[in-house]
Amino acid sequence: MTADRVAADPRDIPAPITRKKPAVVEALLETEEVVAEVEPGVTFRYMTFNGQIPGPLVRTRVGDTVDLTIRNPASNTMVHNVDFHAARGPGGGAEATTVAPGEEKHLRFKVTYPGAFVYHCAVGNVDYHISAGMFGLILVEPEEGLPTVDHEFYLGQHELYTNGATGQKGHHEFDFEKMAAEDPTYVLMNGEKFALGPQGYDELVVKTTDSVRVFFAVGGPNLQSHFHPIGSVWETVYRDGALASDPDRFVQTVPVAPGSSAVTTADFRVPGNYKLVDHALSRVVRKGCLAVLRSEGPENPTLFDPQ
Amino acid sequence: MTADRVAADPRDIPAPITRKKPAVVEALLETEEVVAEVEPGVTFRYMTFNGQIPGPLVRTRVGDTVDLTIRNPASNTMVHNVDFHAARGPGGGAEATTVAPGEEKHLRFKVTYPGAFVYHCAVGNVDYHISAGMFGLILVEPEEGLPTVDHEFYLGQHELYTNGATGQKGHHEFDFEKMAAEDPTYVLMNGEKFALGPQGYDELVVKTTDSVRVFFAVGGPNLQSHFHPIGSVWETVYRDGALASDPDRFVQTVPVAPGSSAVTTADFRVPGNYKLVDHALSRVVRKGCLAVLRSEGPENPTLFDPQ
Amino acid sequence: MTADRVAADPRDIPAPITRKKPAVVEALLETEEVVAEVEPGVTFRYMTFNGQIPGPLVRTRVGDTVDLTIRNPASNTMVHNVDFHAARGPGGGAEATTVAPGEEKHLRFKVTYPGAFVYHCAVGNVDYHISAGMFGLILVEPEEGLPTVDHEFYLGQHELYTNGATGQKGHHEFDFEKMAAEDPTYVLMNGEKFALGPQGYDELVVKTTDSVRVFFAVGGPNLQSHFHPIGSVWETVYRDGALASDPDRFVQTVPVAPGSSAVTTADFRVPGNYKLVDHALSRVVRKGCLAVLRSEGPENPTLFDPQ
Repeated sequence: MTADRVAADPRDIPAPITRKKPAVVEALLETEEVVAEVEPGVTFRYMTFNGQIPGPLVRTRVGDTVDLTIRNPASNTMVHNVDFHAARGPGGGAEATTVAPGEEKHLRFKVTYPGAFVYHCAVGNVDYHISAGMFGLILVEPEEGLPTVDHEFYLGQHELYTNGATGQKGHHEFDFEKMAAEDPTYVLMNGEKFALGPQGYDELVVKTTDSVRVFFAVGGPNLQSHFHPIGSVWETVYRDGALASDPDRFVQTVPVAPGSSAVTTADFRVPGNYKLVDHALSRVVRKGCLAVLRSEGPENPTLFDPQ
Repeated sequence: MTADRVAADPRDIPAPITRKKPAVVEALLETEEVVAEVEPGVTFRYMTFNGQIPGPLVRTRVGDTVDLTIRNPASNTMVHNVDFHAARGPGGGAEATTVAPGEEKHLRFKVTYPGAFVYHCAVGNVDYHISAGMFGLILVEPEEGLPTVDHEFYLGQHELYTNGATGQKGHHEFDFEKMAAEDPTYVLMNGEKFALGPQGYDELVVKTTDSVRVFFAVGGPNLQSHFHPIGSVWETVYRDGALASDPDRFVQTVPVAPGSSAVTTADFRVPGNYKLVDHALSRVVRKGCLAVLRSEGPENPTLFDPQ
Repeated sequence: MTADRVAADPRDIPAPITRKKPAVVEALLETEEVVAEVEPGVTFRYMTFNGQIPGPLVRTRVGDTVDLTIRNPASNTMVHNVDFHAARGPGGGAEATTVAPGEEKHLRFKVTYPGAFVYHCAVGNVDYHISAGMFGLILVEPEEGLPTVDHEFYLGQHELYTNGATGQKGHHEFDFEKMAAEDPTYVLMNGEKFALGPQGYDELVVKTTDSVRVFFAVGGPNLQSHFHPIGSVWETVYRDGALASDPDRFVQTVPVAPGSSAVTTADFRVPGNYKLVDHALSRVVRKGCLAVLRSEGPENPTLFDPQ
């Protein structure tokens, strides 16, 4: 199978939960192996949940029960499964959800603590499957919900290990030795080089008066991100996605471990383009890790006045 | 000297302190150089405190005075010493405790702040001695103690740099170039590949109704860990082992710097095996970093229900 | 141009702000490209702000307006600019401040949140310019100021990628491949190997009764630091330089992301030398990352008593 796009639309998030009682939340994860471009002219055989990186954001509330279906189409070549960091049980559900091509399985689990939790494929070569794209977030809202914002965006960073040089045209195969050495060919936001922003999918668009929340997942499999909004700071940060902790305030760069997340808010009061990056900057300049948010509105010379 | 086992028994921790007044706590560290297996068929010349990795957990209370004896047996080949992160004085005691083979020295120091503090050998090639196994924890309980739990476990992660490939049979010599490049051959829990759990020393055993505390040391010498309990989360985390800070709540993956620690609690309400890992997962799959906790009790389909 | 010294004097910090109202703070950054020694016998073509690493600490208060002049002397060879993490606007000012050799530009921006924020050059090869030395701190004090201490020191860690081996005599050229691989030749405090301390510039000198604050910047461009005072702990830590968050207490080793900072306090009650290090210790032993603070006063055997 080939796909034109694997980068998840960062706006594609279920609406905030307004109900006041627990519910059963159905979730469908379909494992899709697709060949697509990392950047123009460079192809790779991705593995994904539902054809997108990161996989769909599953939105729940503390006390809910997730009713999961995982389906591995017969057209695939590999066994897959899913480990939810929000599930309480062996493997986070990995053994219970292991599906060969053509199989489908079901798991019900209760989410009991708030947070933005990573899920990922967790078969034997777990690092390979994550590196190929199989990770996403399950959000467990606290009972009282999250403060209202004007925009919620969903981004995921991970790294890709291939047998080619960064940018080398053609098809890249996966490289296990480079992964063992933690020496990636690409470090990516939403699975593609420089895909999100005015230079590509122009979907991170806000007004200068808006408030913004970012759900940021790091799949890894190996590298910590150091998440920074160039031209702003994170006004609040729930470190490690731990929504029951006190948030930090006005954080320039938040470290996010592989297999973890951050929930951040920010605003962008001066119009223009804001680069969201891993501040290990060679990953931006040389390996593709960049999303660009565009803020629209009047100039604001009190705050920012080039002369 | 050879040893059958260097992995510390994770249950081997002094009992919680119940006294209400400061005391003098005697500690004996004996530096032991031993050849042992990293995994079956692969040997390495470890350096240890008291023959175990991590070294013995020294348990104290704020205000106590530690009366340390360090002894370097005449059968050793190297000079050793110890730097306690809980000691206030030059080198954390390193100069004062430097012992050649056949020597013994003494140091008294007062512990004045709570926390779980790393200690480690700190001679000239400090990174080599830590990588060979010379690190452990000194716990300084707050005056009021820690909340009671059903189990306390003690784990330590560090990385090994050798001139062999990971898994290559035979004796491995230390490799200084790979250490300078921060490119380890093994990343280990308690000094051996996959040693702790039902597959080896089956010592991390709890009931589904139990509460568990983990004292987790990272010796390094170079790599940060990203400590995650697969199938659960850390209910509380004292980041950096800083027991005077507010703990974080429901943290999926806690970053732990080299030369630092974390004090975490968790429970395991569904029976089965739980893997405790560095979520930089290639270190688990390809370099040996894994401990497995086993939880016993009745199934809990309200929380977790494979169908 | 050549220079005898690029290491910033760690004592060279503007006085704490005592005024109670916002002001306009003038700042002049002059980009200087200079050849200097990394260690005796090893030269490199640094890029700096004002000839020092880290660049000058710009001290402001929440609500102030910074009136920045950036000047690129005609004798330089490269285009430069500056991105302030404390500025709210595209690129943190990068586009607005881009200056070719012989050019000068001006930018006014308001600082609205407290913290210790990194600034750095941010032209196309941003990682190269930071690695060559172009980073520093802008401090935004909270309205009520910071608690009074006896000493404030200013340190910056970054890493250097060259075509030579560590310690190889002669002139080193920059190496882009080693930077892409995050495999540095040197990791440095204030831009030079082992420069600060009794063995070099003996400027970190305190009394055993003194309190000390450290403003610690990590330029990167790629590596996280794990900042530890050997023989003490950080009594308070503002993680990520986020002065509006609650500080952590008694932290042995604080992780500091590239493009971030920490604001720490400590004391040194026992006389002697205290090494300030990245606790990824091979960077200290093998790559030069060390500053040494010297504490003077009477012995303190109650706290620390070698026998």
